[in-house]
Amino acid sequence: MAKLWEKGTSTNKHVEAFTVGKDRELDIHLAPFDVLGTLAHITMLETIGLLTEEELTTLKTELNNIYQLIQNQQFVIEPGVEDVHSQVELLLTQKLGDVGKKVHSGRSRNDQVLVDMKLFLRAEMEEITNLMESLFSTLIQLSEKHKEVLIPGYTHLQIAMPSSFGLWFGAYAESLTDDLELLKASYNVVNQNPLGSAAGYGSSFPLNRQLTTDLLGFSNLNYNVVYAQMTRGKSEQTLSYAMAGIASTLSKMAMDMCLYNSQNFGFVSFPDEFTTGSSIMPHKKNPDVWELVRGKCNLIKSLPNQISLLTSNLPSGYHRDLQLLKEQIIPALDELKATLKMTELMLAKIQVKTDVLTDPKYNYLFSVEEVNRLVLAGVPFRDAYKQVAQTIGNGDFKSDHTVTHIHEGSIGNLYNYQIVEKFKKIKESINFEQAHLAIQKLIPKLSDLTPRTRGKKRFTYSPRRTDLEFVAIHKTRE
Amino acid sequence: MAKLWEKGTSTNKHVEAFTVGKDRELDIHLAPFDVLGTLAHITMLETIGLLTEEELTTLKTELNNIYQLIQNQQFVIEPGVEDVHSQVELLLTQKLGDVGKKVHSGRSRNDQVLVDMKLFLRAEMEEITNLMESLFSTLIQLSEKHKEVLIPGYTHLQIAMPSSFGLWFGAYAESLTDDLELLKASYNVVNQNPLGSAAGYGSSFPLNRQLTTDLLGFSNLNYNVVYAQMTRGKSEQTLSYAMAGIASTLSKMAMDMCLYNSQNFGFVSFPDEFTTGSSIMPHKKNPDVWELVRGKCNLIKSLPNQISLLTSNLPSGYHRDLQLLKEQIIPALDELKATLKMTELMLAKIQVKTDVLTDPKYNYLFSVEEVNRLVLAGVPFRDAYKQVAQTIGNGDFKSDHTVTHIHEGSIGNLYNYQIVEKFKKIKESINFEQAHLAIQKLIPKLSDLTPRTRGKKRFTYSPRRTDLEFVAIHKTRE
Amino acid sequence: MAKLWEKGTSTNKHVEAFTVGKDRELDIHLAPFDVLGTLAHITMLETIGLLTEEELTTLKTELNNIYQLIQNQQFVIEPGVEDVHSQVELLLTQKLGDVGKKVHSGRSRNDQVLVDMKLFLRAEMEEITNLMESLFSTLIQLSEKHKEVLIPGYTHLQIAMPSSFGLWFGAYAESLTDDLELLKASYNVVNQNPLGSAAGYGSSFPLNRQLTTDLLGFSNLNYNVVYAQMTRGKSEQTLSYAMAGIASTLSKMAMDMCLYNSQNFGFVSFPDEFTTGSSIMPHKKNPDVWELVRGKCNLIKSLPNQISLLTSNLPSGYHRDLQLLKEQIIPALDELKATLKMTELMLAKIQVKTDVLTDPKYNYLFSVEEVNRLVLAGVPFRDAYKQVAQTIGNGDFKSDHTVTHIHEGSIGNLYNYQIVEKFKKIKESINFEQAHLAIQKLIPKLSDLTPRTRGKKRFTYSPRRTDLEFVAIHKTRE
Amino acid sequence: MAKLWEKGTSTNKHVEAFTVGKDRELDIHLAPFDVLGTLAHITMLETIGLLTEEELTTLKTELNNIYQLIQNQQFVIEPGVEDVHSQVELLLTQKLGDVGKKVHSGRSRNDQVLVDMKLFLRAEMEEITNLMESLFSTLIQLSEKHKEVLIPGYTHLQIAMPSSFGLWFGAYAESLTDDLELLKASYNVVNQNPLGSAAGYGSSFPLNRQLTTDLLGFSNLNYNVVYAQMTRGKSEQTLSYAMAGIASTLSKMAMDMCLYNSQNFGFVSFPDEFTTGSSIMPHKKNPDVWELVRGKCNLIKSLPNQISLLTSNLPSGYHRDLQLLKEQIIPALDELKATLKMTELMLAKIQVKTDVLTDPKYNYLFSVEEVNRLVLAGVPFRDAYKQVAQTIGNGDFKSDHTVTHIHEGSIGNLYNYQIVEKFKKIKESINFEQAHLAIQKLIPKLSDLTPRTRGKKRFTYSPRRTDLEFVAIHKTRE
Repeated sequence: MAKLWEKGTSTNKHVEAFTVGKDRELDIHLAPFDVLGTLAHITMLETIGLLTEEELTTLKTELNNIYQLIQNQQFVIEPGVEDVHSQVELLLTQKLGDVGKKVHSGRSRNDQVLVDMKLFLRAEMEEITNLMESLFSTLIQLSEKHKEVLIPGYTHLQIAMPSSFGLWFGAYAESLTDDLELLKASYNVVNQNPLGSAAGYGSSFPLNRQLTTDLLGFSNLNYNVVYAQMTRGKSEQTLSYAMAGIASTLSKMAMDMCLYNSQNFGFVSFPDEFTTGSSIMPHKKNPDVWELVRGKCNLIKSLPNQISLLTSNLPSGYHRDLQLLKEQIIPALDELKATLKMTELMLAKIQVKTDVLTDPKYNYLFSVEEVNRLVLAGVPFRDAYKQVAQTIGNGDFKSDHTVTHIHEGSIGNLYNYQIVEKFKKIKESINFEQAHLAIQKLIPKLSDLTPRTRGKKRFTYSPRRTDLEFVAIHKTRE
Repeated sequence: MAKLWEKGTSTNKHVEAFTVGKDRELDIHLAPFDVLGTLAHITMLETIGLLTEEELTTLKTELNNIYQLIQNQQFVIEPGVEDVHSQVELLLTQKLGDVGKKVHSGRSRNDQVLVDMKLFLRAEMEEITNLMESLFSTLIQLSEKHKEVLIPGYTHLQIAMPSSFGLWFGAYAESLTDDLELLKASYNVVNQNPLGSAAGYGSSFPLNRQLTTDLLGFSNLNYNVVYAQMTRGKSEQTLSYAMAGIASTLSKMAMDMCLYNSQNFGFVSFPDEFTTGSSIMPHKKNPDVWELVRGKCNLIKSLPNQISLLTSNLPSGYHRDLQLLKEQIIPALDELKATLKMTELMLAKIQVKTDVLTDPKYNYLFSVEEVNRLVLAGVPFRDAYKQVAQTIGNGDFKSDHTVTHIHEGSIGNLYNYQIVEKFKKIKESINFEQAHLAIQKLIPKLSDLTPRTRGKKRFTYSPRRTDLEFVAIHKTRE
Repeated sequence: MAKLWEKGTSTNKHVEAFTVGKDRELDIHLAPFDVLGTLAHITMLETIGLLTEEELTTLKTELNNIYQLIQNQQFVIEPGVEDVHSQVELLLTQKLGDVGKKVHSGRSRNDQVLVDMKLFLRAEMEEITNLMESLFSTLIQLSEKHKEVLIPGYTHLQIAMPSSFGLWFGAYAESLTDDLELLKASYNVVNQNPLGSAAGYGSSFPLNRQLTTDLLGFSNLNYNVVYAQMTRGKSEQTLSYAMAGIASTLSKMAMDMCLYNSQNFGFVSFPDEFTTGSSIMPHKKNPDVWELVRGKCNLIKSLPNQISLLTSNLPSGYHRDLQLLKEQIIPALDELKATLKMTELMLAKIQVKTDVLTDPKYNYLFSVEEVNRLVLAGVPFRDAYKQVAQTIGNGDFKSDHTVTHIHEGSIGNLYNYQIVEKFKKIKESINFEQAHLAIQKLIPKLSDLTPRTRGKKRFTYSPRRTDLEFVAIHKTRE
Repeated sequence: MAKLWEKGTSTNKHVEAFTVGKDRELDIHLAPFDVLGTLAHITMLETIGLLTEEELTTLKTELNNIYQLIQNQQFVIEPGVEDVHSQVELLLTQKLGDVGKKVHSGRSRNDQVLVDMKLFLRAEMEEITNLMESLFSTLIQLSEKHKEVLIPGYTHLQIAMPSSFGLWFGAYAESLTDDLELLKASYNVVNQNPLGSAAGYGSSFPLNRQLTTDLLGFSNLNYNVVYAQMTRGKSEQTLSYAMAGIASTLSKMAMDMCLYNSQNFGFVSFPDEFTTGSSIMPHKKNPDVWELVRGKCNLIKSLPNQISLLTSNLPSGYHRDLQLLKEQIIPALDELKATLKMTELMLAKIQVKTDVLTDPKYNYLFSVEEVNRLVLAGVPFRDAYKQVAQTIGNGDFKSDHTVTHIHEGSIGNLYNYQIVEKFKKIKESINFEQAHLAIQKLIPKLSDLTPRTRGKKRFTYSPRRTDLEFVAIHKTRE
C-alpha cells in the first residue's frame, strides 16, 4: 500500500489490515475538505517562496479538477492507497509529476487530518443547525395550530394539572434553542485553524498561519502548536456534547410520543404508512419510528463517553488511538441528521386527539385552579390547599374545566414569538457566512456551495423563515 | 417531619428516610439562593395584588435577616424539616405568623427548586471561571518564564520533534480558552428564569415573570412552562459537559506531570512537602497530588453520563428521580474547584529541568529540521525525507540542536499574548455583572457580594489581571 | 498527621487535605477486615520466624480486643491519623510498644488495602445475596398469589396480548436468578488472596501465602504479585457489573410500577403512607419511592463506567488514583442494599387491581388467541393472521377473554417452582461457608459472625426458606 | 419489501429505510442460527401435532440445504426482504409452497430473534474463549522464557522495586483467568432457551419448550415468558461486561507496551514490519498496533454503557429500540476477536531488552530489599525503614542487585503452573460440548461444526494444550 511514510520495509499484512481499519471508507467524507485545506496551504507556501507562482497555478487548477471530481461523486480512494491525503497527492503526482509532492511541504499528516476534520465538522454543524431550524419551525407551527387543545399535564406520571398541545410542542421548540447554544459553542471551539502545527510541534518553515486561517474562513487560530494537536479528540468531544444535547431533546420527545400513542393515553396517532405491524398480532400499529428515534438518540448520548474512554489518560502528543475518533463521530453525525429529518417528517403527519379531557379521570387536573381561586379570594395558600384536599378526599370535588393562565409562557399565552426570537438570535450569532465566502474564493468556479461526499446526497435545505414570521403576530404583554 | 404538602396521613418512617435522602445536607448550599428567589417572588406578588405593600416590607426585612443568618453560617435545617424551602417558610411563619405562608402563593416546590438551583449553579460557574482565569494566568507565566527551555516532543510516545516548556505550559493555557467557551454556553443555558412555571404547567395567578427575571438578574426567561420544568436535568447536564471539558484539560496535564516526574523522563519535579512517601520504599517521592487530580477529573468526566443515565427515557413532566441530580452535581462542583486550586498550587511549586536535551537519546528529535533544511535548499520533500531516513538508518545522523521555529504559536514565537486576548474576550462576554447588580438590589445592606454557605468558606479570588498584562509585551508579527 | 511512611519532612497542609480525602470516613467500613487481615498475617509471620510465639499471642489478644471495640462501635480513626491501617497499628503500639510495629513486616499498605477491600466486598456480596433472596421470595409469593389476575401485555407500549400479575411478578424473580449468576462470578473473582504481593512486586521475606489464604477463607490466591496489584480496580469493576445487573432489574421494575400506578394504567396502587404529596396539588399520591428506586438504580448502572474512566490507560503498577475507588464503590453498595430493602418493603404493600381487563380497550389483546384457534383448526398461519386482521379492520373483532396457555412459563403454568430451584442452585454454589468458618477461627470468642461497622447497623437477615418451600407444590408437567 | 406482518397498507419509503436500518447487513451473522432455531422448533411442532411427520421431513431436508448454502457463503438476504427470518421463510415457501409458512406457527419474530441471538452469542463466546486460551498460553510461555530477566517495577510511575518479565507477562495471563470467570457467567446467563415465549406473553399452542431446549443444547430455559423477552438487552448487557473485562486486560497491556517501547523506557521493541512510520519524521517506528489495541479496547469498554443508555427506563415488554442492540454488539465482538488475535501476533514478535537494570537510575529499586534484610536481622520494620531512608538521603545507598523472592507468585517462584490450572479449571466448567452435540444432531451431515457466516472466514483454532503442559514442570513448594 502506498504510504506517505514508506521506508522500504514492507509492513506485515495483518498489521496493515488492522491499522488501516475503516480509514479509507470514512475518509471519503473528508475528500472535499482535504482539497480545500491543500488549496489554502499551497497558496500560503507560494507567499513564503516554497512554491513558484507557476507551480501554484498548476496545482490550483488540478485541485479544482479533483474537487469537481468529488462533487460529481467520481472520486475514489484506490485499492492500495492508505487514505484520502495519499490519494489526493497521488492524483496530483500522476498528473503533474514532482510538483505534486510539494503540497506536503510544511505539513504533517497530523495537521492535515486535523484541518480536514475541522472543515468537515464545521460543515456538518451548519447542516445540523439548518435541520434544527426546520424542525424548530415545525414545532412552533404545531404549537400554534393546536394551542387551544388541552391535555393532562403529569408529574410523577400522575395526572397533575391542565396542559395543552400548544405547551407541549412549544416546549420541545424552546428546548432546541438551548441545544443550539451548545452547538454554537462547539462551532466556536472547532472553527479554529490547526494548520501549521505539523506533528504537534510546529515547523521550521516560515509558515504564515494567519493567512491559511483567513483563506479557510476560520474565525481564529489554535495558536499554540502543542494545543492544536490536543484539539484532536477535544473537537470531537465538544461536538459530541452538542450532539448529545440535541439527542436528549429528541429522545424525550420520542418517549412522550410512544407513551401518548399508547392506547392507555391515546393523545396522538399516526397514519398507517408511518407505523409498522406485528408478525403475530394483527391489530398492532406500532410507533417504530419513534422508538428508533429514541434508541438512536440514546446511543448518540453515549458518544461523549465513548470519546472520553478513548482519550482519557493519554499524555499530550499524538497517539494512533485518535484515528478511531472518525469511526465514532462520522456515523453518529449521519444518525443525528437522519433522526432530525425523520422527526420532522413524523411531526408533519401527527394526528392529535382534540377531546382528551372529556374522560372523567382527568377531573382532578383542576384542583390547583380551585386552590388558587380561593387564594385570590383571600384565603391563605396553606388553608386553601387543605380545604380542597378535603373535598377531594370526600369525593366532592367539582370543576368547570376552565383554565385562565395568562402569564408569559403559559397555556393562554405561549410566547412562541419570543421563543422564535431566541432561536433566531443564537443562530444569527454563528458565523457560517465567513466559511461560505472563504470556500467560494478557494473554488471560484464552484456552482454548488456545499461540499459533497460520495454515496451520500447531502441534504438540501431551504430555510422556512416565512413560517417563523408567521408566529410573529403573537407578541404579548406590550 | 414538616412538609409543605402535609395531608394528615403520616408517612411510613422507612419511606421518609429513603425519600428525604441527602436533601437536607445538600440543601444548605441552596439556602442563600432560596432567600433571593423568595425576595424576587414576593416583590412581584405585591405588584399583582397578592401581597399588600406592608406585608411585602415585613417579609423583605425578615428575609434579609435570614440571609444574614446564612452568611453568618448560623442557618440550619432543623430536624424534622424536610428541606431548605420548608425551613425558610418555617422561620418566616414563626416570626410573622400567617403572612409567612403567603410566600408560597403562585409557586410550586418545582419552580422553587429550579430557581434556587439555577442561581446556585450561576454562582458556581462564576467562581469556576475565576479559578480558571487564575490558573490560566499561572500557566501563561510559566510558559513565558521557561520559553527558552527545550524538551522532547512525543508522538506515539516516541521521541519525535523538539518541543519546549513554553509550548507545553502554553498549550494547557490555550486549552482553558476552549473550556471557557463551553462554560459560557452552559452559563447562557442555565441563566434563564424558570420561576412562574409552578409544577411545570404554569399558574392561574397573573404572574409577571419578566419582573422576577429582572429582579434576579437572569438574562432571559425559560418561557414555555413545560420547557422550564425540562431544564431540571438539562441545566445540570449542560454544565456537566463544561465541567468535563475543564476536567479533560486538567487530567491530561496531570498525566503529563506523572510521566514527566517519573525518573524515566525527569523533566519536572516538586518539593518534598508536595509529594508523599511509601510505607515500604524509603526512596519514594510520589506525585500523589497529580494522580488525584487525574483521578478526580476522570470521575468528573463521568458526570455527563451519570446524568444521562438518570434522566434518559423519562417522559416530560417532573419525576422524583430528578431530586438525585443534586447529589451528583454539588459534590462534583466542589471537587472541580478543589482540583483547580490544587493544580495552581502545584504549578506554583514546579521545578523544571533545564538540560533535558543533553541526553544523546534525544538527538533524533532534530531529523525533521534536517529534512526541512534540505527542502528549503530545493530538494522535493519526499526525496529529502528518504535521504535523512537513510542517514538515520546508517547511524550517521547528526544535528546541532538548533531550532528556528518562528511561525505563529511555535517554539520561537509562542503567541501567548494572543492566547491571553482570546481568554479575556470570552470571559468578558459572560455577563456576570448583571447577576451582581440584581443581587445587590435584592439584599441592599449586603456587605459581601458572595452568597455564603455553611461549613464551606467560599473561595476568595483576586484576579491577577496585572499578570495577564505582563505578557502583553510579546505581541509579534506586527 | 501520623503516617506509615513519615520521612521527617512535613507535608504541605493543602496537599494533606487534598490527598487524605474521604479516606478516614470511608475506612471505618474496613476496620473489622483490617483486623482480620492482620490476624492472618501475623499468624503466618510466626510460622516463618518473624514473630515469636509469645509476640503472636500478645498481638492476637489485643487484635481481638480491637475487633470487639469495632463491633461495639467504639472504634474511631483519631484526628491526625491517616487511615484505618495506621489507627490499628497505633492502638497496638500504644498498648504493646515496639511489638506493635512488627505487624507491618512483609506487608505494604498496598496489599493491606487490597486484602481489606476484598474481605469487605466479600461480606457485602453475601449481604446482597441474602437481600436478593428475600426479595426473590417475595416476588415468587406475589406471583403465586395473583396468578389468576390478568393484565394487558404490551409491546411497543401498545396493547398486545394477555399477561398476568403471575407472569409479571415472576419475571422479575427470574431476572434475579441471572443477576445472581453475575454476582457469583464477581464473588469468585474477588474472593482470592492478594496478601503477600506487598507493593505489587512481592517480598524478600519467605512468606507463606497459601497459609494466609486458608486462614482468611479465600477460595484461591491471586498468585502473580503484579496481577494481585492489578486486582485493585478490577475487583471493584467486576463487582460493579454485578451491581449494575441487579440495578437493571430493579429499575425496570420501578419504571413498570410508576407506569402501572399512573391513573392511565391503574393496575397497582400503594397505601397513603407509602406515597407522598404535592405542595400545590391536593389530589396527588406520588410514587416517590419507586421513582427513587429507579433513579438510584440508574445511577448504580453508571458505576461500571465511572470505574472504567478512573482506571483506563493507567499502566501496570499502583497509582494513587485507585484510592478514589473506595469513594465510588462503598456508597454505591449502601445505596444498592437500601434499594433492595425498600423494594421488598413496597412490594409487601402493593395493591393489585383485579378487574383491569373489563375495560373494552383491552379487547384486542385476544386477537392472537383467535389467530391461533384458526391455525389449530388447520388454517395456515399467514392466512389466519390476515383473516383476523380483516375482522379488526372492519370493527367486527370479538373475544371471550379466555386464555388457555399451558406451556412451561406461561400464564397457566408459571413454573415458579423451577425458577426457585434455579435461584437456590446458584446460591448454593457460592461458597460463603468457607469464609464464615475462617473468620470464626480467627476471632474465636466472636458472638456475632457479621463484621460490624460504625454508624451503620448491619442488616439482619433471616432467610425465609419456608416461603420458598411454599411454592414447591406447583411442580408441573410431571 | 416483503414483511412477515404485511397488512396491505404500504409503508412510507422513508419510514422503511429508517426502520430497516442495518438489519439486513447484520442479520447475515444470524443466518445459520436461524436455521438451527427453526429446525428445533419444527421438530417440536410435529410432536404436538402442528406438523405431519411428512411435512417435518420435507422441511428438515430443505433447512439442511439452506444451512449448507450458508456454510458455502451463498446465502443472501434479497433486496426487498426485511430480515433473515423472512428470507429463510421465503426460501422455504418458494421451494415447498404453503408448508413453508407453517414454520412460524407458535413463534413470534420476538422469540425467533431472541433464540437466534442467543445461539449466535453462544458461538461467539466459545470462539472468544478459544482465542483467550491461545493468548493465555502465549503469555505463559513468554513468562517462562524471560523469567530471569529483571525490569523495574513502578508504583505511582516512580521506580519502586525489582520486577521481571516473568512477572509482567504472567500477570496478564492470570488476568485472563478472571476475565474468563466473567465470560463463563455470561455464557450461563445467555445459554438459556427463550423459544416459546412468542411476543413475550407465551402462546396458546401446547408448545413443549423443554424439548426445544434439549434440541438446541441450551443448559436451561428462560422459564417465565415475560422474563424471556427481558433477556433481550440483558443478554447483550451481560456479555458486554465480560467483553469489557477482557478489553481492560488488553488495553492495560497495550498501555504498558506503548510506554515500555518508548525510548524513555526501552524495555521492549518490535520488528520494523510490525511498526509504522511518520510522514515527516524519518526516524520513527511507531507502535500503532498497540495504540489501536488500546483504543479499540477502550471503546469496547464503553459498550456496557451504550447498552445501558439504550435500554434504561424502558418498561417491560418489547420495544423497537432493542433492535439497535445488534448494531452495537456484533461489530464489538468482531473488534474484540480481531484484537485478541492481533495481540497474540504482536506478542509472538516481541523483543525484550535483557540488561535494563544496568542503568544506574534503577539502583533504588533495591531499597526495600535492604530494609527487609535489616528486619530479618532483628531491626523493627519502622526503624529499618528510617535507617535506609537516611542512607538514601545522604546519597550513600548501595545495592548488589540480587533478588531472593521465593514465595508463591514472586519473581523467583512464578507459580505459572497454578495459573494454568486455574484457567483450565474455569474453561472446563463451561459446557460447550452440550451445544456441539445438539447442533450435530440437528444438522446430521454437518462436516464442519462451526456455523459460518458470509464474508467472514471464521477463526480456526487449534488449542495448544501441549504448550500448557510445558509449564507443568514448575510446580513448587511441594
